[in-house]
Amino acid sequence: MNAEIISIGDELLIGQRLNTNAPFIASEMAMAGIGVGRIIVCADEEKAIEEQLAESLERSDVVLVTGGLGPTRDDRTKQAVKNLLRSDFVLDEGVYARTVERYRKNGRQPAPYLRENAMVLEGSRVIDNEKGLAPGMIIRCDEAYPDTWLVLMPGVPREMEEMIQNGVIPFFSAVSGNVIVHAHIRTTGTGETVLSELIRPIEDALPKGTSLAYLPHTAGVALRVSSSGSDREAVEEENRAIVDAVSEKVREFVYAEEDITLEESVGRMLAARGMTIACAESCTGGLVASRLTDVSGSSRYFLQGFVVYSNASKEKALGVRSSTLVSHGAVSEQVAGEMAEGCLHVTGADITVSSTGIAGPLGGTETKPVGTVCLGVALRSENGMVVCKTETVHTRGDRLRNKIRFSEAALRMVWKTLRDLPERG
Amino acid sequence: MNAEIISIGDELLIGQRLNTNAPFIASEMAMAGIGVGRIIVCADEEKAIEEQLAESLERSDVVLVTGGLGPTRDDRTKQAVKNLLRSDFVLDEGVYARTVERYRKNGRQPAPYLRENAMVLEGSRVIDNEKGLAPGMIIRCDEAYPDTWLVLMPGVPREMEEMIQNGVIPFFSAVSGNVIVHAHIRTTGTGETVLSELIRPIEDALPKGTSLAYLPHTAGVALRVSSSGSDREAVEEENRAIVDAVSEKVREFVYAEEDITLEESVGRMLAARGMTIACAESCTGGLVASRLTDVSGSSRYFLQGFVVYSNASKEKALGVRSSTLVSHGAVSEQVAGEMAEGCLHVTGADITVSSTGIAGPLGGTETKPVGTVCLGVALRSENGMVVCKTETVHTRGDRLRNKIRFSEAALRMVWKTLRDLPERG
Repeated sequence: MNAEIISIGDELLIGQRLNTNAPFIASEMAMAGIGVGRIIVCADEEKAIEEQLAESLERSDVVLVTGGLGPTRDDRTKQAVKNLLRSDFVLDEGVYARTVERYRKNGRQPAPYLRENAMVLEGSRVIDNEKGLAPGMIIRCDEAYPDTWLVLMPGVPREMEEMIQNGVIPFFSAVSGNVIVHAHIRTTGTGETVLSELIRPIEDALPKGTSLAYLPHTAGVALRVSSSGSDREAVEEENRAIVDAVSEKVREFVYAEEDITLEESVGRMLAARGMTIACAESCTGGLVASRLTDVSGSSRYFLQGFVVYSNASKEKALGVRSSTLVSHGAVSEQVAGEMAEGCLHVTGADITVSSTGIAGPLGGTETKPVGTVCLGVALRSENGMVVCKTETVHTRGDRLRNKIRFSEAALRMVWKTLRDLPERG
Repeated sequence: MNAEIISIGDELLIGQRLNTNAPFIASEMAMAGIGVGRIIVCADEEKAIEEQLAESLERSDVVLVTGGLGPTRDDRTKQAVKNLLRSDFVLDEGVYARTVERYRKNGRQPAPYLRENAMVLEGSRVIDNEKGLAPGMIIRCDEAYPDTWLVLMPGVPREMEEMIQNGVIPFFSAVSGNVIVHAHIRTTGTGETVLSELIRPIEDALPKGTSLAYLPHTAGVALRVSSSGSDREAVEEENRAIVDAVSEKVREFVYAEEDITLEESVGRMLAARGMTIACAESCTGGLVASRLTDVSGSSRYFLQGFVVYSNASKEKALGVRSSTLVSHGAVSEQVAGEMAEGCLHVTGADITVSSTGIAGPLGGTETKPVGTVCLGVALRSENGMVVCKTETVHTRGDRLRNKIRFSEAALRMVWKTLRDLPERG
């Protein structure tokens, strides 16, 4: 079986937004054993959509369409399909009832467009939209285009992704008789080049039906091991064996063998050790605290955060010494250390992390260029002594990217410190 | 004139790489007055490329192709064009001499493939490759496809970008008489549905050549008004008239008539008023501070931030009264107000913003469900008095989405407050 993807949306045609939907769908379909032959971005215009659908259905077994599904005027996909297949709209009572119910539950008056939203192509298999309004559809277009399927999905990435993973892939896996198992290994602290050097022997000898992908995530690189075949048990066993072999090779960089963030991993480690955390941030501007509190249940271990941008606030809130600021400069390991220690004293947390650096684009100097960050981690040891470590990290990028990378380096430093501490009996 | 873009490369079809070339070309072409009607990703396979070229040339005046141009075996673009147009290859002596020279200068023996690399389609206008090897080409395909142009460029982004800006755009700007103008209106505080109700009368009467798009952004909805025509002055005038009319209708939600974030807008307003800001966050966990400090130059007005997750830290860091926490609960406008006021006193900022709420998924109650946030804004008035406003906002979503929406609501509250204050003489 082969597929084409049609991404609908004018904003993609003027370069305002990157088409991230199509690559996602392509890689998921590949795992279901269905290759994508073409990806087309098309204007949100009825005639253009209809023409493109006709062309793609002539060439492929499956045509996956994203976008143009909402109930507003500039969403033309459903109408174009209706024209092309000469079919009719029918009200999907289930979708209608569920969306009305959802509005009521949230104390909102059900809007008139919910009815239009629940109109689907006659005879289509409806895919529920768990994260939004517009329902997806899988349509068998036998009459005009024998043995072809048309899949309609919304263009909002999280709505589409959910539909692909829970509706579309299981459907086509069943059609194609293919079982797919994915496993994730999350690493931090190194890049794709180093990982691939370490993994190469395994990669060169991957069994047929198994693939290994390097996927960037906010804190590093995730390895996805995907295996496919016809027998679930055999596929799972093979997948497990490869995951174990890969994990072994890159052990020192692995923070999780599941699809979780570094901050979630740090949160679990804190909880397992019965420890509390606080942070003192300059250049990361609250991003480290925000990431730590992105984790549900973080109130159990996250005590407090300080964003101390000015020198005055570093002194006043955390007791950083004016002499240290003068002699070493605000961006120095000495100041990072005093920030972390001060934060420990002020908040009474068990471990603290601090950042001071230059996110850019302005403020860089010869010795401390843009992308320099000094980090500190302080913790109270068994005997009540305070231990403090500092390090300097250099990153490259624009302001936002530097802030993100600085926050990653800070979380990584906490992760490494916690890794060496025992869990609480 | 209208164009299509064909991006060639198998890696784009399996989701291994994002197609960043096409959006770049699309936005550059738009500025030259040439709209892109379709973007197609096609396999690096001679037959598929030839078919796609034929289809696209039927539909468009200009077809821009990236990728498949190198001298390696899996680069099939030149051959596909030769087949389609029934033309011949000729050696471009200039390209050949320059690449040989470049190899020599770098102390390398000129490789045999430099000759193949310098073979171009007969009659094509060659675009030099300043950053790599493969030359670009602009080909007038009059015989088979009257009045059409085919542009061939390498797939390496920096090589392609240089060719587009210095070779392709100047060429087509001269050819096309068409001008397109885009304008952006950024709104916050309401959704597409409300906006489209308000704008409908204008939308129904849009002049030919003008379009209106609703684009989501982190803090709300952006409206894009695009106008095209042959006379730049007339197009700009028409665009301006529509933008003014739309802005007038949705005035209360507009925070900028350009493509900037809400935090950038708040930053400019603070700078214009000579004011400093600080924030006191519970449920947003540092995200408000992080967004404010995402803006370059924010150290001029951003003083300090507190992330006070626990009740104890709310009391200790900001002086929130224990009795208020007990009688109203941590998630209350009373506590939000005391947090904002306390932050004002502790930091000496001119304006402060606070948040306390339930991001979820746990912690919701009957009266304060997940998605509830209480916000406070405090500021020092002319006569030194402290003025404090509070409000409660409800959002829907998972934890991360709630945090983002809470932070948006907080920034919006600051924006509204600043809007009512005069700029500094």
